[in-house]
Amino acid sequence: MQKENEKNSKAITEAFKNLQDSICLALEQADGLGKFLEENWQREGGGGGRTRVLSKGNVIEKGGVNFSEVFGEVTPMMAQKLQMKEGNFLATGVSIVLHPHNPHVPIIHMNIRYFELEELSGEKVYWFGGGIDLTPHYVDEEDAYFFHQNLKDVCQKHHSDFYPKFKIWADDYFYLKHRQETRGIGGIFFDRLSQYENLGKEDIFAFVMEVGNSFAPIYTKLMAKNKMKPYTETEKQWQYLRRGRYVEFNLVYDAGTKFGLETNGRTESILMSLPPQAHWLYNFQVEEGSKEQQTLEMLKKGISWV
Amino acid sequence: MQKENEKNSKAITEAFKNLQDSICLALEQADGLGKFLEENWQREGGGGGRTRVLSKGNVIEKGGVNFSEVFGEVTPMMAQKLQMKEGNFLATGVSIVLHPHNPHVPIIHMNIRYFELEELSGEKVYWFGGGIDLTPHYVDEEDAYFFHQNLKDVCQKHHSDFYPKFKIWADDYFYLKHRQETRGIGGIFFDRLSQYENLGKEDIFAFVMEVGNSFAPIYTKLMAKNKMKPYTETEKQWQYLRRGRYVEFNLVYDAGTKFGLETNGRTESILMSLPPQAHWLYNFQVEEGSKEQQTLEMLKKGISWV
Repeated sequence: MQKENEKNSKAITEAFKNLQDSICLALEQADGLGKFLEENWQREGGGGGRTRVLSKGNVIEKGGVNFSEVFGEVTPMMAQKLQMKEGNFLATGVSIVLHPHNPHVPIIHMNIRYFELEELSGEKVYWFGGGIDLTPHYVDEEDAYFFHQNLKDVCQKHHSDFYPKFKIWADDYFYLKHRQETRGIGGIFFDRLSQYENLGKEDIFAFVMEVGNSFAPIYTKLMAKNKMKPYTETEKQWQYLRRGRYVEFNLVYDAGTKFGLETNGRTESILMSLPPQAHWLYNFQVEEGSKEQQTLEMLKKGISWV
Repeated sequence: MQKENEKNSKAITEAFKNLQDSICLALEQADGLGKFLEENWQREGGGGGRTRVLSKGNVIEKGGVNFSEVFGEVTPMMAQKLQMKEGNFLATGVSIVLHPHNPHVPIIHMNIRYFELEELSGEKVYWFGGGIDLTPHYVDEEDAYFFHQNLKDVCQKHHSDFYPKFKIWADDYFYLKHRQETRGIGGIFFDRLSQYENLGKEDIFAFVMEVGNSFAPIYTKLMAKNKMKPYTETEKQWQYLRRGRYVEFNLVYDAGTKFGLETNGRTESILMSLPPQAHWLYNFQVEEGSKEQQTLEMLKKGISWV
């Protein structure tokens, strides 16, 4: 049963597109040099997307801010992967990954998404998902506090459960089991959220949009604060190794990446998340007491940053 | 029913260790500078391995020649992943990946493995697997012919079905579905081979060892032939992009890598296969008529190289 005033998918799609626009604008402004190049693509079966990639900016070395809206029949492969019934689906979202030049500027990822399904029986289901997480090459506790405090504020406006719940979810999700490391300092992550206690579809949508709208102010502040910091060749090499870990996470664990590659998604849009370059050294060990070691010690689940 | 003279696992393990030794020696000689550094590791639950990695040689930039022999109880996770019954297992093998400096020297991979299982019912099963495949950054048809002809000769000595069967298997296995590209020019691949027509365990083992022993002469010849070829910055950049594809294959598809990471294998030994560095450019397109385009056109299944 839907309320009359509940957002329909067209309104959600429009809001996501506008968010993509406003984030691109804010990032270009903060970068000062790089411009997003847009590619429009169509999906066989229904829908398509606007992939926007910025390369070789002043601050951002490589990054993407992608919008997509795909729809059509649920294939048996999709039904199995997403553990859902067959029918007609619509999926729309905004996905961002930014890799900065300076190792003192963190990598960031944001995604918000909406999914709806009309099952063969006629029953309709929908859900939202999303999250923001930060992957500093060097963990700066002040930045970590700022980041988590902002996310907490966004969550608190909607439900007091959200930040603690979604913070733990992010710790669990952005985790490299084979490294026993979190990808970074986490953030928030949530999935299959259609309602929550007294919050309905409109309310969840408002929360999701607030997460999306928090992205640009948070990240442009971190860019501005750190972009001029000098760095050494050692720090640059460490950044390349950390980018290697980012590649490992995205190709081995990331659910969106795996699902996209398995269901014939648009490869170049999905893999825009990969860094411009990454390094692997066999069994690299950080020096005792080094900044690199301090960072590794903070790539753990369950740290309270605020 | 086993014949009295059939190889037991101890003899297989010894042969694999000796093969590791002889390959390392041959590669060090061919490289002229690099030396393998060895690390011995133990597996909780039974067994361990000898990881040998060579970095910054004359010809080889980064490579590993690993031996392992692990045994113990089949965990429910293993049973599920390998689609087999529970019991006590032993798995031993030699795995090699070499990333050369010069983009005109191909990347190579070799693996031979033996697996045996005593099921809870007392029934014993075993099988061999293995393969060699070549990933040139630029496909050289003369090298491709040489490579496949050698593998064909090795196979022909054992069974006339082997080369055609295992060549197709390699084309299918070393395939990046999301790129619609083979990883390189293939080679041979086989798995779960315990007997074949009139060939029994001894015979299959002899075949597997011949595959293993063919590795050093084949690759050192390709090293010698190509290591002095001059290369441009464009060719070096292309090499980094091709290494990116190698990373994608290994982390998204490679069964050994996935299995190892999922079952708490030794991460650094498993991921020695990753290149020293790799690049990703958004939606990189090769130039019409370029050597890069010619190579892409040969990264297809079903090409008869001999």
